[in-house]
Amino acid sequence: MAIVVTNIERVDSALVDQFTGLGVATVHESYGRRGLLASYMRPIFRPIELVGTAVTCEVAPGDNWMLHVAVEQCRPGDVLVVAPTSPCEDGYFGDLLAESLRARGVRGLVIDAGVRDIATLTQMQFPVWSKAVFAQGTVKETLGNVNVPVVCAGALIHPGDLVVADDDGVVVVPRREAATVLANAREREAKEAEKRAILASGVLGLDLYKMRERLAQKGLKYVASAADA
Amino acid sequence: MAIVVTNIERVDSALVDQFTGLGVATVHESYGRRGLLASYMRPIFRPIELVGTAVTCEVAPGDNWMLHVAVEQCRPGDVLVVAPTSPCEDGYFGDLLAESLRARGVRGLVIDAGVRDIATLTQMQFPVWSKAVFAQGTVKETLGNVNVPVVCAGALIHPGDLVVADDDGVVVVPRREAATVLANAREREAKEAEKRAILASGVLGLDLYKMRERLAQKGLKYVASAADA
Amino acid sequence: MAIVVTNIERVDSALVDQFTGLGVATVHESYGRRGLLASYMRPIFRPIELVGTAVTCEVAPGDNWMLHVAVEQCRPGDVLVVAPTSPCEDGYFGDLLAESLRARGVRGLVIDAGVRDIATLTQMQFPVWSKAVFAQGTVKETLGNVNVPVVCAGALIHPGDLVVADDDGVVVVPRREAATVLANAREREAKEAEKRAILASGVLGLDLYKMRERLAQKGLKYVASAADA
Amino acid sequence: MAIVVTNIERVDSALVDQFTGLGVATVHESYGRRGLLASYMRPIFRPIELVGTAVTCEVAPGDNWMLHVAVEQCRPGDVLVVAPTSPCEDGYFGDLLAESLRARGVRGLVIDAGVRDIATLTQMQFPVWSKAVFAQGTVKETLGNVNVPVVCAGALIHPGDLVVADDDGVVVVPRREAATVLANAREREAKEAEKRAILASGVLGLDLYKMRERLAQKGLKYVASAADA
Amino acid sequence: MAIVVTNIERVDSALVDQFTGLGVATVHESYGRRGLLASYMRPIFRPIELVGTAVTCEVAPGDNWMLHVAVEQCRPGDVLVVAPTSPCEDGYFGDLLAESLRARGVRGLVIDAGVRDIATLTQMQFPVWSKAVFAQGTVKETLGNVNVPVVCAGALIHPGDLVVADDDGVVVVPRREAATVLANAREREAKEAEKRAILASGVLGLDLYKMRERLAQKGLKYVASAADA
Amino acid sequence: MAIVVTNIERVDSALVDQFTGLGVATVHESYGRRGLLASYMRPIFRPIELVGTAVTCEVAPGDNWMLHVAVEQCRPGDVLVVAPTSPCEDGYFGDLLAESLRARGVRGLVIDAGVRDIATLTQMQFPVWSKAVFAQGTVKETLGNVNVPVVCAGALIHPGDLVVADDDGVVVVPRREAATVLANAREREAKEAEKRAILASGVLGLDLYKMRERLAQKGLKYVASAADA
Repeated sequence: MAIVVTNIERVDSALVDQFTGLGVATVHESYGRRGLLASYMRPIFRPIELVGTAVTCEVAPGDNWMLHVAVEQCRPGDVLVVAPTSPCEDGYFGDLLAESLRARGVRGLVIDAGVRDIATLTQMQFPVWSKAVFAQGTVKETLGNVNVPVVCAGALIHPGDLVVADDDGVVVVPRREAATVLANAREREAKEAEKRAILASGVLGLDLYKMRERLAQKGLKYVASAADA
Repeated sequence: MAIVVTNIERVDSALVDQFTGLGVATVHESYGRRGLLASYMRPIFRPIELVGTAVTCEVAPGDNWMLHVAVEQCRPGDVLVVAPTSPCEDGYFGDLLAESLRARGVRGLVIDAGVRDIATLTQMQFPVWSKAVFAQGTVKETLGNVNVPVVCAGALIHPGDLVVADDDGVVVVPRREAATVLANAREREAKEAEKRAILASGVLGLDLYKMRERLAQKGLKYVASAADA
Repeated sequence: MAIVVTNIERVDSALVDQFTGLGVATVHESYGRRGLLASYMRPIFRPIELVGTAVTCEVAPGDNWMLHVAVEQCRPGDVLVVAPTSPCEDGYFGDLLAESLRARGVRGLVIDAGVRDIATLTQMQFPVWSKAVFAQGTVKETLGNVNVPVVCAGALIHPGDLVVADDDGVVVVPRREAATVLANAREREAKEAEKRAILASGVLGLDLYKMRERLAQKGLKYVASAADA
Repeated sequence: MAIVVTNIERVDSALVDQFTGLGVATVHESYGRRGLLASYMRPIFRPIELVGTAVTCEVAPGDNWMLHVAVEQCRPGDVLVVAPTSPCEDGYFGDLLAESLRARGVRGLVIDAGVRDIATLTQMQFPVWSKAVFAQGTVKETLGNVNVPVVCAGALIHPGDLVVADDDGVVVVPRREAATVLANAREREAKEAEKRAILASGVLGLDLYKMRERLAQKGLKYVASAADA
Repeated sequence: MAIVVTNIERVDSALVDQFTGLGVATVHESYGRRGLLASYMRPIFRPIELVGTAVTCEVAPGDNWMLHVAVEQCRPGDVLVVAPTSPCEDGYFGDLLAESLRARGVRGLVIDAGVRDIATLTQMQFPVWSKAVFAQGTVKETLGNVNVPVVCAGALIHPGDLVVADDDGVVVVPRREAATVLANAREREAKEAEKRAILASGVLGLDLYKMRERLAQKGLKYVASAADA
Repeated sequence: MAIVVTNIERVDSALVDQFTGLGVATVHESYGRRGLLASYMRPIFRPIELVGTAVTCEVAPGDNWMLHVAVEQCRPGDVLVVAPTSPCEDGYFGDLLAESLRARGVRGLVIDAGVRDIATLTQMQFPVWSKAVFAQGTVKETLGNVNVPVVCAGALIHPGDLVVADDDGVVVVPRREAATVLANAREREAKEAEKRAILASGVLGLDLYKMRERLAQKGLKYVASAADA
């Protein structure tokens, strides 16, 4: 298989932009604690934030040829999502590809492999989450696929899905669930602001969340010293 | 076992505060090269510094219920120390719990697991050392223990122990040894300042520490080229 | 074996300084995609840059004695390169050794092990790339070698070799190849500036690099949807 | 979400059994070099072999409750595939669950987490591939899902998919592609037997696969010594 | 500190031997799901089993001197437990030390570091659990401690504690709790035999453990297909 | 660079064969505690043993083309040593290549990457040490080098060097040092046999190696209980 799917359905851009500022943790919770990429996916600078729609790119280990193919499929508001077919930390991506993506209005890169030129990428404030920083060069010999579903850092990502990323990492939300997740996230956010004020005033979570009774039922004991246990 | 020990003895707060500025490396050396947590415990921002007394919290993997219990046991000057019963990098801790800890005067968090909301925690300048940054949500189902001895990132920590942490990582000093370690650390610090000036002037460590003779005795040879070896 | 080679040939300092600003990725490519140290070698602060000549130091695990021996062999423009004989992440190096190296005009440290005092090293802006940050103290009991060839983080380094390091990591170029690599790097850099401008204008890499024909020959198919594949 | 899908379509059992003896490498190649689980998935004994249909089970970290739910959904010829919602190596599975699976005709277990009682499992010759061997006990508090698509050790697995596993690891083939993959695999196997005999007779792969011309075109040089390069 | 504690209290040998055959998983559960060493501690051969009393030995990285000191402190029925002061995988232990331990009636070795000569150790059937197999030689320069409490592979071990190890790994039980844990373990073992027979007959865990009601209360739904969820 | 060096000097085969049975640990010690490959290089079956001369092969990640080129350069008594230019665990090698190597009298494989078909390789008793077992297929697109010096699993290996491998791992000895190392190894082996008998009789290493005085000089204290320290 070596295909490029040219006509993908994306989360509506107006909907995407409403995710700005919500953050990965809130979106992950609002999507039923699903969609997170592995914790090894770290941003190349901080603070950092990204919301966008996925263009997916499956590549051979040590071969970045398909990234050039994928660039053409990108539109303003997209995020390029790159997954190698076997584990690899080579530097698939650097400042030239970033320039090319930026020229197309692409908002950032999520890659389960390595990147390089991170000093320049940081100066450009081009957002990247990667498995590694590694200058190792790649070749251009083997085909892969663009805009097929990929498993990236342990998460299943379809082309057109919503990608939200920040200092905490990356989360993906399937296209059809984005609207529901947004509603959940806003509700959650409103409640969190309220809770935060209460907790800041010194009220305990034990009381705010009414945990004491259930803790006692489960058998939690309070003792003055360990010898009393 | 599922207990909360409510009455722990802490290192005296006046003594604790005298450790400010000494740093992890100096305290570790002054405590006989002991007490370090594993090198994977990294701060969420830099520069960073913390001295405080440990409130310990043992949690189940993927379950942050006991953190809420532990908050109530914290006093001004404490550090919350969290250890899961088996390896886990879920995001047990975020901005709401930080708000709650700050309201109680807690100085920071040391957790052998994951944290989230690190952009907000960084804005709050709430000090955290963790094994991972990961937004993965947790449940509230399983009891654990508060203020029992825990092994956290390879180090044994008792409630009330002194915790010192900075850009280099985290070190723990048992309560009864804090005064002795402080004395050692001050002596060491004074000597280091002196040595630093001498080394900065260009004197070699070989001469300052009088190493040449012992090196020769052990058999070190100086040769012009490897071919002469 | 426990030798110190006192008379090594270094890349000419005028040549070394011409590598300033080229960057690890460019140098690595210009040296035939060779010479990179492993991706776990990370700088202690960013942005960071270093060009210099290697003084190599082979040490026992947990024993930093030979670093003091190596300092004496350093000249202005050198980089100290440290490799343990078996994997170790102890904190071999801190602010005192940095002071000593700086007094000798040494430009930085590359160590396949741990460092400590990184807050101070950062204040000093003393460049360090290491495998770990770890305050663990070391002993001074076992001899090693200075200025012998070492394998450091997977790369073979001879004394006198050129070391180039930046935010991306570390690359080494053998002494005799430095001039050729410089020529290649400058040519590459000139071309990259040109390409970058073209890509920034929106021209695709597919067209700039004339990739379309070969992709088609290899069998790449464009389809409207995955169902058409 | 916490559902059990009770009515899944499986690869036909007659088709499944024809994969016996083909092996993971051959099936992976015959499915277009796709479908492999990560290399950390290792069998608990060797030699080992398994072909079967996936019943999938998504579990919370440190919580094996849903395994008991999944057992009921298993039929003769199935393989239980277990994926935690975040990385965990606890011992979710031991000899009692194996007994229960065996009673239902289940052929083995693939789990992206830990197992225990491996001495007994080995005596029973119950095939298991896991991320870890770890006796850590689990709780029964949090729901998960049975027979939903899961990402297990980096591979997407749907309920009813074909699972083939041996000493090399585990590969999954989507239900609808099993017949095609079988045809490819048989063809491949026949050719391999032929090639193997030729290679055993001393014919070189260079000649058998007619590689010499293309190697030369790409620029490969033969030199008597490195100095001639 | 560099001490050898010569007079330690051990679990009674008659009590120790009653743990034979219970296995790590059962003992871990019977001790309240505590006491496990990290999952990276693997046996050098299988099947394997060990029960014994801990003689602890704290060593410097790359330095096995104290093992010779520890041997003298061992008695018949002991297990030597070795923990380095910082992570190290050097080969501290080989066939000569095994011969020496065997001559003293020592039953095995648990080491959070490397071992070598495992072919010979396997022939001798001398039980070893280690972090690594690595032939790297060590030195004899730096003192450590014998029979002090150590953290070994994440578990706190006191001299004289009970060590139980098998194919699943290693668990430690504090001296004073051994009798209670034995009673629990026997009870658990009796129940497990019974359960095993019931499960083998085809009764489901869902019914045997009466889980259905609580699963429903928590909200588990059974659906014919995912589309019905 | 893409060269094949056809005329390499090997350790004399008569000399090579005298290393049979000495073992990795002894050879490593006899070569001054040098030459070990990283501990992650594990054999695919046990017990296992190999002595031979290195034919080296440098490959691109995920590309096994050059292995076919390397086969032709092998002679009876050789060991194929494979190093990728960046970290990769793909399955470069399987039963067909083993058949081809065996036809040329090659004794085994050392590969800093993955292998597959290990069930068949085990049946063939073809010795392999690898970083991973992984069925991931590779391509044949990118040239590499044969019989150039390589860094393999952290060790520098020249073509023609002596490779010794067993259950403990792999060690390499430079061609010119093989005779000296053999002499050292034999001497060491004779002494070890003697020591082993003495230790087996119950004499302590403390006495056999006369360690007591130096331990006391360094400050080791014997105390009845920790409270006396």
